[in-house]
Formats: sequence, structure tokens, C-alpha cells
Amino acid sequence: MMYSDIFSEIYFDLEERSDLGRVASYIPELKNVDPSMFGVHLTTIDNRGSSFGDSDVKFSIQSIAKVLSLTLAFKLEGENLWKRVGVEPSGTSFNSLVQLEHNKGIPRNPLINGGALVIADVLISHFENPKQELLNFIREVSNNDSIEFCERIQSSEKESGFCNAALVNLMKSYGNIHNEVDDVLDLYYNLCSIEMTCKELSETFLYLANNGVNPVTKKEIICPSMSKRINAIMQLCGFYDEAGEFSFKVGLPGKSGVGGGIIAIHPHEYSIAVWSPKLNLKGNSNRGIWFLEALTTELETSIF
Amino acid sequence: MMYSDIFSEIYFDLEERSDLGRVASYIPELKNVDPSMFGVHLTTIDNRGSSFGDSDVKFSIQSIAKVLSLTLAFKLEGENLWKRVGVEPSGTSFNSLVQLEHNKGIPRNPLINGGALVIADVLISHFENPKQELLNFIREVSNNDSIEFCERIQSSEKESGFCNAALVNLMKSYGNIHNEVDDVLDLYYNLCSIEMTCKELSETFLYLANNGVNPVTKKEIICPSMSKRINAIMQLCGFYDEAGEFSFKVGLPGKSGVGGGIIAIHPHEYSIAVWSPKLNLKGNSNRGIWFLEALTTELETSIF
Amino acid sequence: MMYSDIFSEIYFDLEERSDLGRVASYIPELKNVDPSMFGVHLTTIDNRGSSFGDSDVKFSIQSIAKVLSLTLAFKLEGENLWKRVGVEPSGTSFNSLVQLEHNKGIPRNPLINGGALVIADVLISHFENPKQELLNFIREVSNNDSIEFCERIQSSEKESGFCNAALVNLMKSYGNIHNEVDDVLDLYYNLCSIEMTCKELSETFLYLANNGVNPVTKKEIICPSMSKRINAIMQLCGFYDEAGEFSFKVGLPGKSGVGGGIIAIHPHEYSIAVWSPKLNLKGNSNRGIWFLEALTTELETSIF
Amino acid sequence: MMYSDIFSEIYFDLEERSDLGRVASYIPELKNVDPSMFGVHLTTIDNRGSSFGDSDVKFSIQSIAKVLSLTLAFKLEGENLWKRVGVEPSGTSFNSLVQLEHNKGIPRNPLINGGALVIADVLISHFENPKQELLNFIREVSNNDSIEFCERIQSSEKESGFCNAALVNLMKSYGNIHNEVDDVLDLYYNLCSIEMTCKELSETFLYLANNGVNPVTKKEIICPSMSKRINAIMQLCGFYDEAGEFSFKVGLPGKSGVGGGIIAIHPHEYSIAVWSPKLNLKGNSNRGIWFLEALTTELETSIF
Repeated sequence: MMYSDIFSEIYFDLEERSDLGRVASYIPELKNVDPSMFGVHLTTIDNRGSSFGDSDVKFSIQSIAKVLSLTLAFKLEGENLWKRVGVEPSGTSFNSLVQLEHNKGIPRNPLINGGALVIADVLISHFENPKQELLNFIREVSNNDSIEFCERIQSSEKESGFCNAALVNLMKSYGNIHNEVDDVLDLYYNLCSIEMTCKELSETFLYLANNGVNPVTKKEIICPSMSKRINAIMQLCGFYDEAGEFSFKVGLPGKSGVGGGIIAIHPHEYSIAVWSPKLNLKGNSNRGIWFLEALTTELETSIF
Repeated sequence: MMYSDIFSEIYFDLEERSDLGRVASYIPELKNVDPSMFGVHLTTIDNRGSSFGDSDVKFSIQSIAKVLSLTLAFKLEGENLWKRVGVEPSGTSFNSLVQLEHNKGIPRNPLINGGALVIADVLISHFENPKQELLNFIREVSNNDSIEFCERIQSSEKESGFCNAALVNLMKSYGNIHNEVDDVLDLYYNLCSIEMTCKELSETFLYLANNGVNPVTKKEIICPSMSKRINAIMQLCGFYDEAGEFSFKVGLPGKSGVGGGIIAIHPHEYSIAVWSPKLNLKGNSNRGIWFLEALTTELETSIF
Repeated sequence: MMYSDIFSEIYFDLEERSDLGRVASYIPELKNVDPSMFGVHLTTIDNRGSSFGDSDVKFSIQSIAKVLSLTLAFKLEGENLWKRVGVEPSGTSFNSLVQLEHNKGIPRNPLINGGALVIADVLISHFENPKQELLNFIREVSNNDSIEFCERIQSSEKESGFCNAALVNLMKSYGNIHNEVDDVLDLYYNLCSIEMTCKELSETFLYLANNGVNPVTKKEIICPSMSKRINAIMQLCGFYDEAGEFSFKVGLPGKSGVGGGIIAIHPHEYSIAVWSPKLNLKGNSNRGIWFLEALTTELETSIF
Repeated sequence: MMYSDIFSEIYFDLEERSDLGRVASYIPELKNVDPSMFGVHLTTIDNRGSSFGDSDVKFSIQSIAKVLSLTLAFKLEGENLWKRVGVEPSGTSFNSLVQLEHNKGIPRNPLINGGALVIADVLISHFENPKQELLNFIREVSNNDSIEFCERIQSSEKESGFCNAALVNLMKSYGNIHNEVDDVLDLYYNLCSIEMTCKELSETFLYLANNGVNPVTKKEIICPSMSKRINAIMQLCGFYDEAGEFSFKVGLPGKSGVGGGIIAIHPHEYSIAVWSPKLNLKGNSNRGIWFLEALTTELETSIF
């Protein structure tokens, strides 16, 4: 049976379960998305793709993009990066300030908001034009020059982003933000505003299934050891306070976004992107997790 | 090069780093262990073993045994087990009561003390003679009838175990302990008192590298899906507040104990036990983690 | 107008407000109390009494008794006492273990459960027969030899007191309990089991309105400076996480119990006991606080 | 003996104790103050003053000014004010974000930073020119038209005030800040920049010793009931996490500032201002608290 057939089979099975999730509503751009959308795209490391549903519709990848800025910052800073951000699961809700206070301004990991803001600060210190450099890097990773920041989403985020402003200010009070608060927020919101289709997302993340090398362009995005480490961080920190549950049920490293997207990596095999906008109480795509759980059960594969 | 050669090479490399770790000192039985001991034993799923150092010296496996009681309880209860204990990383020190209060008596995962105490409670509810049944199960898993609880260690633990008594009482106040406080503590301390050599430990955990089947006896200890899930729990929760670091550096699921032992699993490949009594600040074997990091770097293998 | 007239006037005014409080239900002895009971008794320092309602009905004074054991321990230990317990408001719910962990086993103040358990431990270290000595002291303070511990209540408390057992064990793990866990719990539950009428309660606490001297017997229970300090502790810590609210509305130092009793002190003037069994969400007598607020507003007196 | 004689006697007694406190150093304006300065001024409600030391030297009153903005906001809003800020002691360090998260953006009380920022927001909503109106009010209360905001201090605070910016943004994310973040911070820093002498400070706060009426001008600043309630709030919340200790030792309602000033109120008697720049570990004037403790012990007066 082909992957696409399995996808459709699982999709129709899931149709019978009522999805009580709710679309993210804090900005109009997310709130107005059609909640019934569902797309999936799997790309193997020898670049064969399998799709189902709305896999060619662009959606806001949101926090999934944090893995890409992390990749760039890790490449630039190496092990020094870990002086400014940890690699431990957060254990609480994704924007909690409590742990930042406890850890003197060092965020628990680079995939929660606090950590991603520090990563943005790192990039600003490295580049004259960090926004353009980050975009160039993402285009290189994805082998796709049409990727753009979405002006509309990022300005909408900024208007309601008081919690992120609190995070940056708090970290700056501890000396862990080196640039201007507004510049950090600006780069961060640009990063989170990226839109991709499931197909694009899956192809972009293929390097993490292939020891750091984009198998199509043959370019080494990051060295094998760093690639493994980013997978390890996704495994432990990719789903806010549901990382254990995802690891337990799906058994693959991955990352979710509040736009309803999930990327998951089977090292040495494939990367898979799923999109379904309704989120569960932990802020992760409800049907997306169901789908991946059913898929890895059906395929009888996991990293464990 | 054989594994044993690699072991000795890494061991002598590490000799040059000063190990600032400290042997656990809260009970005499752990405090009096020779801090220079070092053993390692790797067993492949086709049952070939490689050793180095003090791999045939018995030591107190302590919390590593929590994986064995979890295996038995999961086998008995199935998915019901997760109503009473979570699968999320704890994010704080290993005996914190804070999260128990926050979660209304539901421990974050079965590998921290609170969770292991709930698992002990579950076993007591299942068996007339839980102590004997647990021992029988561990002997079956390890294919080794000489495994015993250590009377001396468990009574010593009990005398100083006020923090564990606090945990059980707190969970009982929330209704998540069904049996007598003293009975739960008794079974728990027996479990943690088990002594094994690195060789025995490595052989005991081989089932988790082999989809739940002990490859020597061919007995299915637990079904493949449950075996994967226990690995996932170890990956996220096996090293207290250093789970991310271990995952990041070593890239294998594993579990540590305050006796200085660590078990790690490479699914479909091998299980490896290391022992070095001096602990780092997070309570995990200092040299043990160094060794495993160097080994997986050298072998260029991890699950990621 | 006499105090009694004011009492009845306020009582009938309050009748018109619906009391949504709930009687404490964790033990049958408290649960079965008639929720409509209401008593008040005020005693001036020249020993004139004014009553209203069920002021001669015995009720379980519960945590109010913690002020009496504190008085005895402070008298015995002097300033040394504050090495083992703080004098700061707790800021969270009354049996929280969080702060105990944060403060390494030192409770925030002697009027929360943790602190009262340390006080019990202090008394046990001082006396051969602490139970009898404590009772003798309370009889002396109250000038009433009929005061007794209630066997029924204290054994009922003990059966459900897992949270207190957790507190003692946790503090013992930090070295701040010197005697046996069970002995500390036993003395504590005896203390909390005392029953008094509003009249007895008001007369017992008169020493705190009179610089430490019982104005009837002329005996100095405690020196003036200590008496003031106990009032200060009550002011800041007497109402769990409602101390600010009580201070704000009533403006007198006081202490509540889950039996629905409240004692309040107007230094150099009077002590007043109110009893109404239904508790608000913070665990303090709902109507009791309403009554005292109305009374101090009517009398236009407070310590501020 | 006159108050001034007692002041000098206590001062010279304290000279023998080594003051290990440290001057606040987060902005140059505070850091450069002469640490040996010491002033005290007591004003009775019949307007007789007693002084000692540097009682006519201006210093930055800092957080003491929060009582004045609270007075104005309470007067304007009445009981509605308590929908946006609590009256409970904070129980942790003065700029903690933890409790704000726990309480959904409602600060524990109006005297911690979070609460004072909400109060600033309330004033901004009330006035077209809140800065001028606040200054006018303070001048009226103090009966002193020379009181000014200090431009130098407030701009210096703003430059390093990332923690306060975090607080305002966090509260705004919960909807408890209605105006622009920068406007709230601006008014707040102006408030905290006020400089007074001990004499001026003592005279300014006399209304709280006199049921809300300035006894010199006879103007009612606030009604008697509100005046008592502000005293109650100071008693429970005026000294960060040392409120219990201050209440225990000094027995008067009061408020401290990081400039080393303390105001304390003996209702119906006097107000007293002390200034000594070196702070203890809790952020309150070290010698200031010693002095007030010795004074109230010597005078044998407290509200208890």
C-alpha cells in the first residue's frame, strides 16, 4: 500500500471522531482559517513525496519556524549557544515567566517563546540585516525562493503580543537580551509569520532526516552531530507541555505551531508535515496528533 | 575495533578529566562505595556481550529499577495506568512536591519518586504478595533467579526516607494512593534496594532493545507497542532535570540511579549499563554520562 | 447602646444576605454541625461580657488553638523560636508544601499548619508529658479547668490527615522536626480538637488584649512585648490567604478556625469571639467576617 | 525626655552595631548617596516636630510615594479599585512575575511594583494630564508646593527598568492595563522620582495618623474609613517580604523605599520618617528598621 492510501484511510477513520479542538483566535489571520482544512505531505530522504488533502494550501507555520532560526543560530554559535538557552523540557505552559525568573533569564529551551526570542537576539548580533539573512537561510534550507515573511500576520501578532514583550523585557533585565527589545520582537514576529504548504514544510525539514544535508540540493545545512541534537531538542521540547505525550504516542521528534501545523522527522527515513487548524488544550493540532499516532502505529515504526 | 577496546580507550581518555562528582551520602550503604569503581557492559540483541572494568561487581541499581516496576504495572493495567500518573518530563528536582500539588496528586511521570510510589501502589492492589510477585517478575525479565532485594539497603532508606513519606501522604490526601502508606513505602524501598552487576543490568534491559521480547529466553515481557512507549518515557523522563541534556548528548533512551548506574537502550541494537558512583549536581552519574556521550559520538549512532 | 443590642442589630441585618459559605466537611464531627448556629461574645479587659445568640454552645475551635500553643512555645523558647519558624504571611493556601520546599523546611509562620506542627514539636522537646502540660497551660490561660481535648475529633482528624502527615515528613526531611512524626501529629491533633463556647474563647484570649496578663486572675501569661508580638503575628498571618482582607475590613488582629470560629483582639479594650460554621472560599467563617466588619464599622474603632 | 533626646540616644547605641547593608546601586542617583547619612523626623498630630541628624536633607523617597498615588486612586475609584488589585501580602520578592501569572494579571497589593503600575494606569484613565494632577495632589497632601518630580532620577530608572516593563506588558496581556505601556511606565517613574526630606515626608503622611485629615491645613485628604484601610494595607504589605518582621518588631503600619527611607504611622499619635541609605537583604533600610524597633520598644507603644 502506498503512503497516500494509508493517509486517506486514516483520514476517513478520524472523520468519525469529533474534533473538539479550537482554532487559535488571538489574531484575525489565524481565527479566520477554515477549521476543516486538512493536509499531509511526507517526503522520503530519496525525495519521493506522498500527499493527501489540502497539502498544497499555504498556512501560517508559526512556531515550527523556531527550528529553522535555531538551526541558523546553532550553526553560527556552536556550543556557545547553550550559555544563553537550555535544552530541557519546560514542563509548563509555553509562555510561562515563572521558569525565566527561576533560571535568572535563561529560557529552558530554544523552542518555547522565551528561547526563540533569545535565538532572535543572537541572530541580530550576528547580522547587519538579520531579517534578510534569516529569510535567505530559510529559502536555502527549503530550496524555495518564494518563501516570504507575511507582513499582515507579523503586524497583527505585534499588536497583541504583550506577553512576548514581557518575556523579552524580563530576559533583558537579567542581561540575556543584548539588542533593543523592539528589534528582537520584530525579528521574532517576522520568523513566526512564515507561510508554507505541507509539501513545502516537509521538504524544508528533510535535512533533519538526512544528517543535516538537504538530499535534493546536497548542501550541508548543518553538520550531522548538530542535526541529531536538533532532533533531540524537538523530541523533548517540541510540543510545549505535551512533549511526553507526543513522544509516547507518535515516537518521532517534531514541532508544532498554533497555526495547526506539525512537522515530524523519522531520522534516515522521511519528514512529514500535517496541518489541521483546530488545537487541543495544550495548543497543538488535535487531529494532527491523532493522525500521526495512527500513522506510526499503522507503519509500526518509531525511533524507539 | 571491538566494543571492549573502545570502552577502554574512552575510559583512559576520561581519566584525564577530573571528576568533581560526589557519591550519594544519604545512607551508609551508598556512601561507603569505592568512588573509583567503574564498570560497563553492552549486550547486543543477539546476546553478544562486551565488558570493561568492574562490570561484575554488584551495585545498588536504585531508581533504575523503577523501569521494571513500571513495565509490570503497564502490562497489568494497560492504558488505564495513565489515569494515575502522567508521561511528561518533570522539569524540576526529582522529589519536588510542588508539581504534585499543582496536579492534584497526579505525578508527572512514573520515573520520578512520586510516580514510582503510585506504581508501587498499583502493584499492591493487584497482588496478594506484591513483594514476591515483583521479585519473580524481575527475575523473569533478567533471566536470573539470584536477583534479591537487599534488606540492609531498604531498611536504611526507610529510616531516612521522610521525603518519600511526604510524597505518599500528599498523594493519599488527593486520593491517588489506595493502599496503606507504610505498605507502599515498603514495596518501593524493596524495589530500589536491588543490586546487580553491569552485566546483569544490561541483560535485564535487553527486552527494551528488542520490542519487548527477551532475546535469550524468547519470552515476551511486554508487547512491542508498550516496549516502545517505555523507551519514550525513559527518553523524556529518565534523568530527572537532565533528560534534555542526556538526550542532546547521548541520544538514547535511558535511566539513571543514585547508586551511579545508568542503563541506556539503542532500540534494535543493544542495551548498555555503565556504573560510576560519583554523581553530578543533577544526581546522575558524572562519568557515566561522559562515557556514554563519548561512546555514541565515537560509534556515530543515536536514535536521531 | 449596649454591645448586645448592636450585636443583635447587625445579626438581623446580615440575615438578609444569603450566606453561600459551606461547612467544613472533611471529618464528620465538623460536617454535622448545624450551619445556622451563630454566637458572639465580647469581653472587655475589665471583664464585662456581652453576648448574642449561641454564645454558650461548645464548638471545635480548631486552628484558633494554634495561638495558645504558640504562646506557650514562645514563652519557653523566647527569640530562639524564630530559628525554626518565620513570622511572614504565607501568601498561599494554608497547607501548601511549596513554600516549605522553598524555605528548606522552615514554615512561613506559626499559624499555618506547618508552623503549628513545628510548635508542637518544640513542646514535645520541652516536656515529659507534653499533652498534659499543654492542656494545663490552656486551662490556666482560660481560667477554666473544664477545658478538654476531644478524643472523637482528634482521632477523626488523624484518619484523614494525610496532608499534615506530608507536612511533618517534609519538614523532618529538612531536619526541622526533632521528634517522632506520629508524636508530633498526635499532639497537634489534640490541640486542634479543643472545644469552647464563644464566651470561653473570648475570656481565654483576653490576655492578648491586656499586655499578656489575664485581667481576672492577674496572672502574667506572657510578657507585654511577647503579647504584642503575638498580636502582630495574628494580624499578618491569622486568616490564611485572607489576612489582608481581614485587616483591611476589620482592622483587628485575629485568628480563625475551620470550625467557623474567629477570635479578634482590640488591644487595651476587649477580645471578641464569633462563631458561624459556614466557611468562605478561603476557609474562614463567612458570616463571622461579615459580622466583625459591620461591628468595627459601627463602633468606628480599629487599631488603624 | 524629649523625642529628640531619645532619637540621639538610640542613634548612638546603634553606632556600635556594624551595618552590613548596601546602598541600592541599580541607578547612579541612588548609588552615589553618602551611605552614612541618617535622619529622622517625627510629627505629632498636633503638629509638633522632633528631629535628629540629616533630617533636612532631600532623598529619593522611591516606593514610599506609592502610598500617595494609592490614596489618590482609592479616593477616585472607591471600592471599585479592588477589582484590579488585591490587598494581600505578596509573600515573595517585590518584582515577582510569578504571582501575576497565577492571579491572571491582578497584582497582590498596590504597594508592590505590579500594583503601583496598575494604580498609575488608573490615574491615567482619570486625568487628561495625570502627571500634573498627581503632582498637585502630592503638593496638597504635603502642604508644600516645592515638591517636584526629579527628571534625572526618573529617566535613569527608565533606562534600566526592564523588569517593570515586563510587569506592565504581562498585566496588559491579561487586560489589566488600559493605557499605553509607555505612558504607564512614565507616570510610575515620575512618581518614584520624588525627593523629600525626613521632615517633609513625616508631615506629608500625617493625614494617615489623623483619620485622613491633614491636621495643619484641616483638609480631608481621604475619609476616615479609607485612611484606616490604607494603614491596614501598609501594615500587611509595606515592606515586601519583611512585612511580618516589621510588624513583629516595630508594630506600626509603614512603607519603605529603596532610597533608604521609611515612613511609619502611629494612628492618632504621630507619623515618623527615618532615612538611612544602606538596605538589608530584603531591600529595606537596615538601620531604619533597627531605629524604629528600638524607638517603639523604648516608648513602649505599638498598635498592638
